[in-house]
Amino acid sequence: MTERNRRIVLAERPQGNVEDKTVRLEHGDVPEPAAGEALLRNRYLSIDPTIRTWMDDVRGYLPPIQIDEVVRCAAVAEVVRSNSDRYSVGDFVFGMTGWQDYALADEGARAMQALPPGIDPTAALSVFGVTGMTAYFGLIDVGRVKEGDAVVVSGAAGATGSIVGQLARIKGAARVVGIAGTDEKCAWLTDDLGFDAAVNYRAGDVAAGLRKACPDGIDLYFDNVGGELLDICLGQLALRGRVVLCGAIATYNAREKTTGPKNYRNLIPRRGRMEGFIILDYLDRFAEGQHEMAGWVGEGKVKFAIHLVDGLEAAPSALNLLFTGGNTGKVIVRVD
Amino acid sequence: MTERNRRIVLAERPQGNVEDKTVRLEHGDVPEPAAGEALLRNRYLSIDPTIRTWMDDVRGYLPPIQIDEVVRCAAVAEVVRSNSDRYSVGDFVFGMTGWQDYALADEGARAMQALPPGIDPTAALSVFGVTGMTAYFGLIDVGRVKEGDAVVVSGAAGATGSIVGQLARIKGAARVVGIAGTDEKCAWLTDDLGFDAAVNYRAGDVAAGLRKACPDGIDLYFDNVGGELLDICLGQLALRGRVVLCGAIATYNAREKTTGPKNYRNLIPRRGRMEGFIILDYLDRFAEGQHEMAGWVGEGKVKFAIHLVDGLEAAPSALNLLFTGGNTGKVIVRVD
Repeated sequence: MTERNRRIVLAERPQGNVEDKTVRLEHGDVPEPAAGEALLRNRYLSIDPTIRTWMDDVRGYLPPIQIDEVVRCAAVAEVVRSNSDRYSVGDFVFGMTGWQDYALADEGARAMQALPPGIDPTAALSVFGVTGMTAYFGLIDVGRVKEGDAVVVSGAAGATGSIVGQLARIKGAARVVGIAGTDEKCAWLTDDLGFDAAVNYRAGDVAAGLRKACPDGIDLYFDNVGGELLDICLGQLALRGRVVLCGAIATYNAREKTTGPKNYRNLIPRRGRMEGFIILDYLDRFAEGQHEMAGWVGEGKVKFAIHLVDGLEAAPSALNLLFTGGNTGKVIVRVD
Repeated sequence: MTERNRRIVLAERPQGNVEDKTVRLEHGDVPEPAAGEALLRNRYLSIDPTIRTWMDDVRGYLPPIQIDEVVRCAAVAEVVRSNSDRYSVGDFVFGMTGWQDYALADEGARAMQALPPGIDPTAALSVFGVTGMTAYFGLIDVGRVKEGDAVVVSGAAGATGSIVGQLARIKGAARVVGIAGTDEKCAWLTDDLGFDAAVNYRAGDVAAGLRKACPDGIDLYFDNVGGELLDICLGQLALRGRVVLCGAIATYNAREKTTGPKNYRNLIPRRGRMEGFIILDYLDRFAEGQHEMAGWVGEGKVKFAIHLVDGLEAAPSALNLLFTGGNTGKVIVRVD
């Protein structure tokens, strides 16, 4: 076999943005599947903000990526050789295969999930995958969205945020408001996805925009970004308001120590709740969420956008898109 | 009637600490009870950190005290004249009578609660009052304390904190740790109240002290102070840890804008919850809490300390004790 396995490994821990020197492209041997193993060819890589957190040497919900280790990510891959009854050549599977062309699957710790038939790989990585399930369980289970809520979501044109707003509408929210970074994204939210209002955080007074959109305060804030937007929303929390902490992309690349939201104090008089979650805790309930989501997608009540980037070597710049706001919807790298 | 009513009114909004110029002592007429009203003589004033928050012109859970208005506080008072069937001369009652000698009770908006017979007024204002109920419902209902928890409480030698630790022990906490500001207070917590450990936040490395006391992380942090201690505890939160936001006395007197806890982000990987509450929401469940508390006090499982200050005119300095840490236990002003 003359083909080589391109692997993007972590070369050094980033100080701020992921730069050229952060990662290194290597050409290694294509791995040989042993008995009980299968060789996978990566087809689509899921590009998620959390990848950036794994690059830091801090205790998180998963161990940090080690230096010289392939950058971790979820992906859809195709089985190209198999020495396992579990995998057949031509199967599409889902798992944490990382930023590389080839990976091995086994029947134990590195077992992969079969992609349900009829599901497009990009949909599997977005609306039916971790992204969509994050929106679903974060909004419903952690946020306990209820009829009449004024719901605000940041990163609203992103993969998770865009689903959150649509699910809030389905669940009877009275106001659905998105925060995004361009007028085009804001127009997409209101015109195509049915948000009641969208606030461009790069133009004008976000606090005033939210007060206008939610004059009685914010019942549920789904936070994907942290930073100043979290502070503003805490300051406008309604009685018994809830803040779902999904992510904090405004802080992941920070070079200096970040501060926290001074308005956390408002949780006391407002009887508010701020709660974090990790979607991995809900893996055993994915089927429930996927089933409901499939219904809504089928009825046209949930729309999703894919921001496709071509080529494995574009993975680092695709990751940076999430932090510069260059994407609308889910960022996916098509490996080749 | 030649006697005068001493009234301490808010003269100007404090910038930082309550100073001499913040309040003004006035001598007014003793009010005349109309039909259906009673004249009350204040006996004991409850001095609570929240009084300081009412002095600021910000939206809170109660409206701010207005300039020239008597400073609001809870108190135990004696009925000295009555034109109401509800009140008999000699009755002791509880209500928001404020920093003054005399106040009127009525049968409507200013109705007072009768003090149960056999309850000492200082106990009614502390362990059986708002202070004790704040500890009870905050720990049990908001914090959902459970067996095996490592519980940390700040302001631990204060009126609420000292009860929180003892209730945590009763509820089966594996570790009960207090944070206080002097070695004497720390010794009181461990030697008299049964805390497992106490950390003096003015001496040495609090973070290291807490890590030693709770090597597996903090399951429940009951926060009375906010500021840096909140940040440290968020940073040491155990999986599914809970932060009960009761107060933030470290910030109430701040002249400059305070920042928030940067470690709020830890709520995400730790799946943590931070929630605020206001004890007024639990008024209709006080009987339940008081009944349990009376049992524990009777069995000697809950001890409480009263820091008595003499004289109405000492009320402002008594309030400042809470912020300088000059008290152990509940601060109460004996009016005369």
